[in-house]
Amino acid sequence: MQPIRIDDAADPRVAAYMDIRERDLAGRQGRFVAEGKVVLNVLFSARRFEVESVLLLENRFAGMADTLSLAPAGVPVYVTSGEVLDRIAGFHMHRGVLAIGRKRPAEDIDTMLAALPRRALVVVLVGISNHDNMGSIFRNAAAFGADAVLLDETCCDPLYRKAIRVSVGAALKVPFVTAGGAAALVETLAAHGFDQIALSPSGTTDCRDMARPERLALYFGTEGDGLPDALLGRLKTVRIAMAEGFDSLNVAAASAITLHHFSDRISSAL
Amino acid sequence: MQPIRIDDAADPRVAAYMDIRERDLAGRQGRFVAEGKVVLNVLFSARRFEVESVLLLENRFAGMADTLSLAPAGVPVYVTSGEVLDRIAGFHMHRGVLAIGRKRPAEDIDTMLAALPRRALVVVLVGISNHDNMGSIFRNAAAFGADAVLLDETCCDPLYRKAIRVSVGAALKVPFVTAGGAAALVETLAAHGFDQIALSPSGTTDCRDMARPERLALYFGTEGDGLPDALLGRLKTVRIAMAEGFDSLNVAAASAITLHHFSDRISSAL
Repeated sequence: MQPIRIDDAADPRVAAYMDIRERDLAGRQGRFVAEGKVVLNVLFSARRFEVESVLLLENRFAGMADTLSLAPAGVPVYVTSGEVLDRIAGFHMHRGVLAIGRKRPAEDIDTMLAALPRRALVVVLVGISNHDNMGSIFRNAAAFGADAVLLDETCCDPLYRKAIRVSVGAALKVPFVTAGGAAALVETLAAHGFDQIALSPSGTTDCRDMARPERLALYFGTEGDGLPDALLGRLKTVRIAMAEGFDSLNVAAASAITLHHFSDRISSAL
Repeated sequence: MQPIRIDDAADPRVAAYMDIRERDLAGRQGRFVAEGKVVLNVLFSARRFEVESVLLLENRFAGMADTLSLAPAGVPVYVTSGEVLDRIAGFHMHRGVLAIGRKRPAEDIDTMLAALPRRALVVVLVGISNHDNMGSIFRNAAAFGADAVLLDETCCDPLYRKAIRVSVGAALKVPFVTAGGAAALVETLAAHGFDQIALSPSGTTDCRDMARPERLALYFGTEGDGLPDALLGRLKTVRIAMAEGFDSLNVAAASAITLHHFSDRISSAL
């Protein structure tokens, strides 16, 4: 793979990388930024998203041979100096491994659910608006073999730059779809035969005492307010037992514990 | 409790709050900054640290009555305008609830371990240098009733402003001590009768198959390199089973799963 040298920060071929931080907020016209060798490995091997280009610090190119061998044929690989890269990105990029991917058209939730295996684990997120939490939950979903993530319309974007980075690429691997309101999600999942369980501090059952249903949809809400009461009233609820006097758990930590508990798509072999 | 009004950002009574962000790095001469109502609740109720003063946005004072009623008698409570507070802190503080606490003299590790109950759970951290992870691990340690946290000399400071904030105050509640090297920690814990178990991706036993020893010291290493081989060779090791193809878990998430598994200091009642 022959790299293409970029010497001018204004080169239109790297326009998608311009001012990465600011553009995160403003959107990127259907594109996302993947950063770091591990994330690019996931982007290239999961093949869920089209890759538009790769941009590397020139001194990183040699060490990226294994990763680049996974990239789709024909993807342009640009290399540049640290000085030019910093001018492109708009701040100091000490790692210097970037790619631009294209977002996918919104998938139809019924089509996606119908394609899942009979025994399936789906994560449902309601109102998760913090990109760190979003990325961490995706990472846990991937680690414990969740089949898909469904997001209500009030969740933040899993393809935001920081969410992808925190997910260590899981946001590029685990299929997800942003649907409408949570109430409609409950209807849809019921129609597809899912047992629906919500994690809540006021849950009626300790999660350790809840067996894994064959088709499980596991709901997580915002850390502050949790899931709305109207939703909790329609679902089975589980809680995570905690110490007296400090019953406070981050939603990503809660997802790690419950996904680990309910997962059977994990290997116990060495 | 009568608040004391501050109208000048240069008032020496609020000098400890000056330029909070920058001073985090340079140290604060034995002091730390606690932020937010929930963290102040923990600071005041756990009573592990002396409180030097409280600084509030004037419009937050009324809503802080419950929290301030827990504060040690005689602690000065300063109130100020948003404009003056931003000048003191050196950036925009939209929450406007702060306190300065005093660090404690280093505790003797033998004294601390000798004071623990017979059945005890101690978290041992080796090389945790990320303040988000440090704060999250403390939060999990508190949620699952760990008795203490021991840190090797390469860990970052749990009383760094961001670590306290991410811990939701747990860093002010769970006793901790920074000891020397990890090898010395192993000797000390053995002398105090602890079973020592290290979490590692190459662990010999799935953590779900490991029963809780009466006195448990649970080791966590850095996310990148993990615990040093020399250390792993001297300890029992456990792993967390993960999905094929994505065996990557944040150290804080791993601590949530294993502390939840080994904890018995938790309530399962509603």
